[in-house]
Amino acid sequence: MRINKKIMTIAVVGIGLIGGSMALALKEHGLVRRVIGVEANSVHAHQAISLGLVDECATLEKAVKEADIILLATPIGVAQQLLPIILDHVDKQVVFDVGSTKHSICETIAKHPNRKRFVASHPMWGTENSGPTAAVKNAFVNKATVICSKEESAVDAVALVEKIYGILQMHILYMDAAAHDMHVAYVSHISHITSFALANTVLEKEREEDAIFELASGGFESTVRLAKSNAAMWVPIFMQNRDNVLDVLNEHIAQLKKFKACLEKENFDYLQELIENANGIRRILKN
Amino acid sequence: MRINKKIMTIAVVGIGLIGGSMALALKEHGLVRRVIGVEANSVHAHQAISLGLVDECATLEKAVKEADIILLATPIGVAQQLLPIILDHVDKQVVFDVGSTKHSICETIAKHPNRKRFVASHPMWGTENSGPTAAVKNAFVNKATVICSKEESAVDAVALVEKIYGILQMHILYMDAAAHDMHVAYVSHISHITSFALANTVLEKEREEDAIFELASGGFESTVRLAKSNAAMWVPIFMQNRDNVLDVLNEHIAQLKKFKACLEKENFDYLQELIENANGIRRILKN
Repeated sequence: MRINKKIMTIAVVGIGLIGGSMALALKEHGLVRRVIGVEANSVHAHQAISLGLVDECATLEKAVKEADIILLATPIGVAQQLLPIILDHVDKQVVFDVGSTKHSICETIAKHPNRKRFVASHPMWGTENSGPTAAVKNAFVNKATVICSKEESAVDAVALVEKIYGILQMHILYMDAAAHDMHVAYVSHISHITSFALANTVLEKEREEDAIFELASGGFESTVRLAKSNAAMWVPIFMQNRDNVLDVLNEHIAQLKKFKACLEKENFDYLQELIENANGIRRILKN
Repeated sequence: MRINKKIMTIAVVGIGLIGGSMALALKEHGLVRRVIGVEANSVHAHQAISLGLVDECATLEKAVKEADIILLATPIGVAQQLLPIILDHVDKQVVFDVGSTKHSICETIAKHPNRKRFVASHPMWGTENSGPTAAVKNAFVNKATVICSKEESAVDAVALVEKIYGILQMHILYMDAAAHDMHVAYVSHISHITSFALANTVLEKEREEDAIFELASGGFESTVRLAKSNAAMWVPIFMQNRDNVLDVLNEHIAQLKKFKACLEKENFDYLQELIENANGIRRILKN
């Protein structure tokens, strides 16, 4: 089995924050000796080589042919288009993705004859930055990662992806794709929408940007940090997870309206109750 | 002038995150030799002594009498009640507050015969934690602080407060109280409301808390961190800054509804535009 080979070749399709960081870690560990990048953006391709994230860049076809592992790390819309093409060309290789939604991509290849070579996964790590220059060493450590619907994948393929996440020092959770998408709407997607909307609120209303620049404190920066995130990544996520995100967004607007009603009616007892209820998030947050 | 005395006594009224952290810094620097705490909560009073934040605790009356500087660092509703009483008992002492709203407290003592001994200020630093155990060394460094309506304060009083913020290595901004309150609604108060509401959204809808616990990633933690903040501090802030906060909250809900409309109508071009507009926050954020 390929998994027992000491040193392998990985094709990283989409060399950005995730693909680049993962290539760095796997090469440093020694699991892979050769990293072939597949990158549509020629500036990113050059950056990836000069930053040492990849050894070379190649066409998708060549990379798939020469690799033992294919990591699909493009924005999810592109990943969904490329995955069937990649699966058409694999035999024993293992293909895994790292996209933020899982139901749609799994549906796309559900009937593919090589479905079992694919493992659907989602490492729960990222920053608001993107592109090869955003890649960092020691990303992923101690974070959670999800493997979806592992029973649809070959045992050796799952084992290799588990080995990769072990090398990255991630904690693996298993769930089905639909449950994953609902959960991430709560713990990731809604946070991005609130942060984008908060940024637009401030940019819309506040003319004296200098005053904001000077006054913006840690609290503001932490809630609005995600608003720097890349539209090319996030629009497809919101497209694919539209129903879950809409559910959570409606609930979130309803929660905000409770705060609004408290202020309008000067009902400060209920305001206190809302805040004390929110403090319950301490139970959930690790830090 | 007292400001020229090498070593002074400070009374810290309310020994929590801000009062405690400030006392630590001023004593370490040597500006003050003696710190007298005034603390209604007896558990906090004992903690403050055992943590070395204060040398002793005393009644408000005794502390004001024996101090050169009086730092008012209680929640803002209490500060507004105590300030006139403190000013009744000062002659040459300098009194300053660190509250998150400034208009209301300044109005309260506008006609007080000792108004000039008071300097209204707001250091833009904090964490989601509170109480004496939350106090830390090296807080405030490189953050902004606001001094409001300095023309209402005596020159020597302003000079001493400026000296204190210099010791804390803060960058001082000057503005009138009403402008301050409007700005902080944007850069601080709305962030807390969105964070509280986000926490309640997740707590309300998500039954499988274990899944959230495992999946919650950096993005979620940063947007919801402020939801741990103390109701006793925040309810009075929202009371006092109600009109500004309502303006910003209404705008924020309107911005969220744009995202909702994009999803409902599957208008992903406009969604991309909204996100790209939000990316403009990079201009404002320092990091």
